[in-house]
Amino acid sequence: MDKKKVVIIGGVAGGATTAARLRRLNENIEIIIMEKGDYISYANCGLPYYIGDVIKEREALLLQTPQAMKQRFNIDVRTGNEVLSIDRKEKTVKVKRASDGSEYVESYDNLVISTGSTPIVPPIEGIKGEGIFTLWNIPDTDKIKNYITEKKPKTAAVIGGGFIGLEMAENLKEAGCSVSIIEMQDQVMAPVDYEMAQLVHENIRMNGVELILSDGVQKFENISEPTGNKTRITLSSGKAVDAEIVILSIGIKPNSGLAKEAGLELNQRGGIIVDEYLKTSDENIYAVGDVIEVTEFIEKGKTMIPLAGPANKQARICAGNIAAGFGILDKSTEGIYEGTQGTSVAKVFDFTVAATGLNEKTLIRMGRKANEDYFVAIINQKSHAGYYPGSAPITLKMLFSPEGKIFGAQIVGVDGVDKRIDVIATAIRLGAKAADLQKLELAYAPPYSSAKDPVNMLGFVAENILKGVVRFVPWDGLEKRDELAIKMGVPAVTVLDVTESFERMAFAVEDSVHIPFGQVRDRMQELDRENLIVTFCAIGVRSYNVARILMNSGFKHVAVYPAGTGFYKSAF
Amino acid sequence: MDKKKVVIIGGVAGGATTAARLRRLNENIEIIIMEKGDYISYANCGLPYYIGDVIKEREALLLQTPQAMKQRFNIDVRTGNEVLSIDRKEKTVKVKRASDGSEYVESYDNLVISTGSTPIVPPIEGIKGEGIFTLWNIPDTDKIKNYITEKKPKTAAVIGGGFIGLEMAENLKEAGCSVSIIEMQDQVMAPVDYEMAQLVHENIRMNGVELILSDGVQKFENISEPTGNKTRITLSSGKAVDAEIVILSIGIKPNSGLAKEAGLELNQRGGIIVDEYLKTSDENIYAVGDVIEVTEFIEKGKTMIPLAGPANKQARICAGNIAAGFGILDKSTEGIYEGTQGTSVAKVFDFTVAATGLNEKTLIRMGRKANEDYFVAIINQKSHAGYYPGSAPITLKMLFSPEGKIFGAQIVGVDGVDKRIDVIATAIRLGAKAADLQKLELAYAPPYSSAKDPVNMLGFVAENILKGVVRFVPWDGLEKRDELAIKMGVPAVTVLDVTESFERMAFAVEDSVHIPFGQVRDRMQELDRENLIVTFCAIGVRSYNVARILMNSGFKHVAVYPAGTGFYKSAF
Ligand SMILES: Cc1cc2nc3c(=O)[nH]c(=O)nc-3n(C[C@H](O)[C@H](O)[C@H](O)COP(=O)(O)OP(=O)(O)OC[C@H]3O[C@@H](n4cnc5c(N)ncnc54)[C@H](O)[C@@H]3O)c2cc1C
Ligand SMILES: Cc1cc2nc3c(=O)[nH]c(=O)nc-3n(C[C@H](O)[C@H](O)[C@H](O)COP(=O)(O)OP(=O)(O)OC[C@H]3O[C@@H](n4cnc5c(N)ncnc54)[C@H](O)[C@@H]3O)c2cc1C
Ligand SMILES: CC(C)(COP(=O)(O)OP(=O)(O)OC[C@H]1O[C@@H](n2cnc3c(N)ncnc32)[C@H](O)[C@@H]1OP(=O)(O)O)[C@@H](O)C(=O)NCCC(=O)NCCS
Ligand SMILES: CC(C)(COP(=O)(O)OP(=O)(O)OC[C@H]1O[C@@H](n2cnc3c(N)ncnc32)[C@H](O)[C@@H]1OP(=O)(O)O)[C@@H](O)C(=O)NCCC(=O)NCCS
Repeated sequence: MDKKKVVIIGGVAGGATTAARLRRLNENIEIIIMEKGDYISYANCGLPYYIGDVIKEREALLLQTPQAMKQRFNIDVRTGNEVLSIDRKEKTVKVKRASDGSEYVESYDNLVISTGSTPIVPPIEGIKGEGIFTLWNIPDTDKIKNYITEKKPKTAAVIGGGFIGLEMAENLKEAGCSVSIIEMQDQVMAPVDYEMAQLVHENIRMNGVELILSDGVQKFENISEPTGNKTRITLSSGKAVDAEIVILSIGIKPNSGLAKEAGLELNQRGGIIVDEYLKTSDENIYAVGDVIEVTEFIEKGKTMIPLAGPANKQARICAGNIAAGFGILDKSTEGIYEGTQGTSVAKVFDFTVAATGLNEKTLIRMGRKANEDYFVAIINQKSHAGYYPGSAPITLKMLFSPEGKIFGAQIVGVDGVDKRIDVIATAIRLGAKAADLQKLELAYAPPYSSAKDPVNMLGFVAENILKGVVRFVPWDGLEKRDELAIKMGVPAVTVLDVTESFERMAFAVEDSVHIPFGQVRDRMQELDRENLIVTFCAIGVRSYNVARILMNSGFKHVAVYPAGTGFYKSAF
Repeated sequence: MDKKKVVIIGGVAGGATTAARLRRLNENIEIIIMEKGDYISYANCGLPYYIGDVIKEREALLLQTPQAMKQRFNIDVRTGNEVLSIDRKEKTVKVKRASDGSEYVESYDNLVISTGSTPIVPPIEGIKGEGIFTLWNIPDTDKIKNYITEKKPKTAAVIGGGFIGLEMAENLKEAGCSVSIIEMQDQVMAPVDYEMAQLVHENIRMNGVELILSDGVQKFENISEPTGNKTRITLSSGKAVDAEIVILSIGIKPNSGLAKEAGLELNQRGGIIVDEYLKTSDENIYAVGDVIEVTEFIEKGKTMIPLAGPANKQARICAGNIAAGFGILDKSTEGIYEGTQGTSVAKVFDFTVAATGLNEKTLIRMGRKANEDYFVAIINQKSHAGYYPGSAPITLKMLFSPEGKIFGAQIVGVDGVDKRIDVIATAIRLGAKAADLQKLELAYAPPYSSAKDPVNMLGFVAENILKGVVRFVPWDGLEKRDELAIKMGVPAVTVLDVTESFERMAFAVEDSVHIPFGQVRDRMQELDRENLIVTFCAIGVRSYNVARILMNSGFKHVAVYPAGTGFYKSAF
């Protein structure tokens, strides 16, 4: 074999991983990483925590240096080298050195584009002002950290309630700021649905952070006082927020300019289109990471999902395919990237928020109808056995088809959330049906789970829904009783609170009838059988048991309010 | 339908759950629980923690009372009612009331046996002595708790190093005792293999607990002093251990006497044989829980796996099948129990120890040969991103076939262990191949995991093993170099330490050559190409990278020492 040459553009998640794996597959390929910045292989995902001093050492963020990559992997890492253009015919790239501005041309046999993405900075008045930052890489981080160290801001505003925005809100709080989050949508954390986000909203506010929803930024104004820099943020509503430091975190766009100019196929959002081998429309050019369009795993649509896990996985597959293409590895070892589910998790103050697959908003956007095209299970469970100290409630939502196909799941809670989303993500990836979750034999001892793990419970509940053993009202069903009555073809809705009297003293749904669980058999004649009876309790388990009593006693219209009091109180 | 009557023997995990689900499926069936003890529906698994005062309230252990089961589920719970015999022809049971010793006969349409198991108390001299206890139910717990409260023992011995024994050791330590564990085998925690158990042994000892392995009890002697009760335990080795309190935890046997006398089919170990519908050899009798023989999920052999998760799952399926048998549910909703993997987890001092599927000991016992019939991957990973505070090492072992079938996995570590075993248990249950683990899209943010989750890493490593990209030596390979050399047909073994000099100052494998990772390309001529080169480092990752350099540079015999220094130091 001739000595082959692979040029990789971008030296972080996708790029460095492709390089490392490729080297392990072959000693002889010449591997060059072109990185326009000064750093490679750093922990983007750790940046917010370094700003909040949760991660103390800046060095901890730098996983590999160019020197180590040279010594250990024999990779020619060229930091401060920006690729300006790609000449596909000549198979060369034009590169500019940051050090002296000089340019040169480098040839390749295969090119890998792992240029990532860039935060969007929309053309809003004043957005370039002092004290307004985006966070994406090490220099950004240094700027923010230095600004905080020098100016000691006491007020901060985060524009955008995605996971990076929320991590920054938390870390700015850690750094001593009073924080406001401004989000244009009616919820933070887009991967979860509104009612799940409401749990997060409540916690954000409990942590003393101001949360402004459904409001966008109209302009930024510098209103610095002699004592220091300050920005006034005027919102669409007219409201104004003043902050000494502002973080913009309102979305990202793929760094696909190079690819576009080179005539590679892009999608509408600028994502590079690749085949399942991660090859672009040019057979010598691969692309991985944030910059590519991926197959959405569930419904096989096309989308963009900028996450580190997928970038790393794609990189390893890409390296294998390059090696196979060069005849180094057997063709049969070529790897296919099967798509991205969008499994994600974030720590948001006291909560962990996680999701995988499609959410309900997306299903609705796709024209799917609740209770026809998809079903919803929302349940409340404990992170581990309730009798062992430290257990905390977690709320799980799962969406699935009448055939049992799992569309997606979302979980919010203090503990044990990441575990359950990983189990469900695994089940989805391996093609499990919703009811299969009940079969999963998960590890149980009191500090870790319950004999019926929350994921098993989701499986039970899904099976019950599919077999007509239980029906739930929507999370906002109690507020829309008339609508619900019409939809169900009943004269009215009766909300039946089955909690004990002492619980009802603490909280009661408006206009509800009260019969504690243990008295339902004796007192069901008090209920109007023509109505839809919606059972209600703290968690949803007693409601479910009562619903079964009523259904088995000839009541025709019975449904359960999902996940009980805690959920209901947060969701409104 | 005539009113049907179901009698359930045993009112805890399997029994109470069968009853509850059956009631939810139908209001009219008469359901009777016969429980010989005074309590139903209690949290067996929490008992050790109540003794250690980790669980403060005794009430927290009692999940349902007979009264509540009556009120809420309309179940006739008869505590203090022991079933003495079953008359299969008449479809009746003979029952004895503890209150007055009277007996009566109760008829059934279906009978469910969920009688559980009982701790084994072998006929060892002195075993019935004062201060010697077994722990299985609430009265046992009360006895132990009272004894501790009254006698305030300062020394304790636990006989048997299974999970209950270890939980008791930990909780007796919590209760202020100096504890000795005595185990006949050379390891505790039978579900994991010896080298994984060694990590646990180290931690037990670090926690100041005396651990005596490979030694059995020969006799117990009461050597009470005026100051209090004391037992002398004489071991096979001649060693003696004195303890004021002794807990026996050396195994259990199924409570299948009733079934045996009734002529139901049992296996050799006394387990009731059931079909996949959980029906015994009598078509009106079902059995669930500890008392039954189950299909071992991996290789479909028959075994007994007494765990709460399986008992609960079986109970729910059993209830469904009873309902289907009575024509209440459609036959198509009959459920099948597909077998038990034996997924288990235990908190053992600072560690979590977990396993699922078959271990290597079992494979060897089945006649399987390493590197022919099965492969072993042992890796060391961090519980979450190393740069985020609080991450801790976890060691994962996976066994898989040349075709990639996963036989089982074991994990030991301080944090994140239960999550990874659940993901692997899910993958196994859903039929994933070892290399499929790399595809799993698990949730990543720095507090929870790494962009390549430890489970993904297992998938990478498994793929590498199966494709010949890497080879590992056994965990004890460095101690058996001559053997290894003969097996590999090489003149000798060279252990190549690729750590940095400062690391080597802290620890070095005996008789090893030292070339740091970054110098290997330049200095590989120092190595004898005829030898087997075994690379060694702290974690296994550098060793692997160096192995690849050597393999790709024409070295024919290269292997990696798995999981690195920490593991090596513990395993010996
Ligand atoms: C603050 C923050 C927190 C995050 N947290 C998480 C998280 O918790 N979980 C998660 O899954 N993901 C997280 N992510 C996302 C994750 O980091 C990205 O998905 C991942 O890094 C994408 O990898 P990539 O290789 O595509 O791009 P990157 O890792 O961004 O690397 C792209 C590199 O290409 C270089 N480059 C671009 N153009 C050129 C050019 N023309 N010439 C030379 N070099 C060029 C850039 O300088 C950059 O270094 C986070 C990201 C950020 C910024
Ligand atoms: C201390 C301890 C800790 C444990 N920890 C865990 C753990 O962390 N994880 C885990 O998965 N499992 C654990 N287990 C095991 C788990 O509790 C059992 O697997 C489970 O309870 C088995 O359910 P079962 O219904 O078969 O039997 P049981 O729950 O034991 O119930 C059997 C009942 O039947 C009654 N009975 C027996 N014979 C008769 C008769 N003739 N007439 C009337 N009644 C009768 C008994 O009195 C008993 O109450 C633990 C067990 C113990 C004791
Ligand atoms: C640092 C970096 C270059 C390392 O790349 P890498 O060498 O492929 O990755 P890792 O160090 O995680 O090691 C993984 C390799 O070690 C192997 N491995 C892991 N543990 C092992 C063990 N105990 N024994 C043997 N092999 C092991 C894996 O199989 C894998 O090798 P393979 O790809 O050839 O199968 C790259 O991950 C990087 O730049 N990361 C930082 C950027 C980033 O990801 N940012 C976003 C997240 S914050
Ligand atoms: C207490 C006990 C009788 C309860 O039995 P149970 O009612 O079947 O179990 P749970 O209370 O866990 O509830 C599970 C049911 O609620 C349903 N459920 C759970 N959460 C729900 C929610 N939010 N909304 C609707 N339904 C829900 C489940 O689908 C399941 O019903 P199904 O079996 O009809 O599908 C029984 O579990 C028991 O005795 N346990 C203690 C003994 C034991 O297990 N010991 C060993 C471990 S320590």
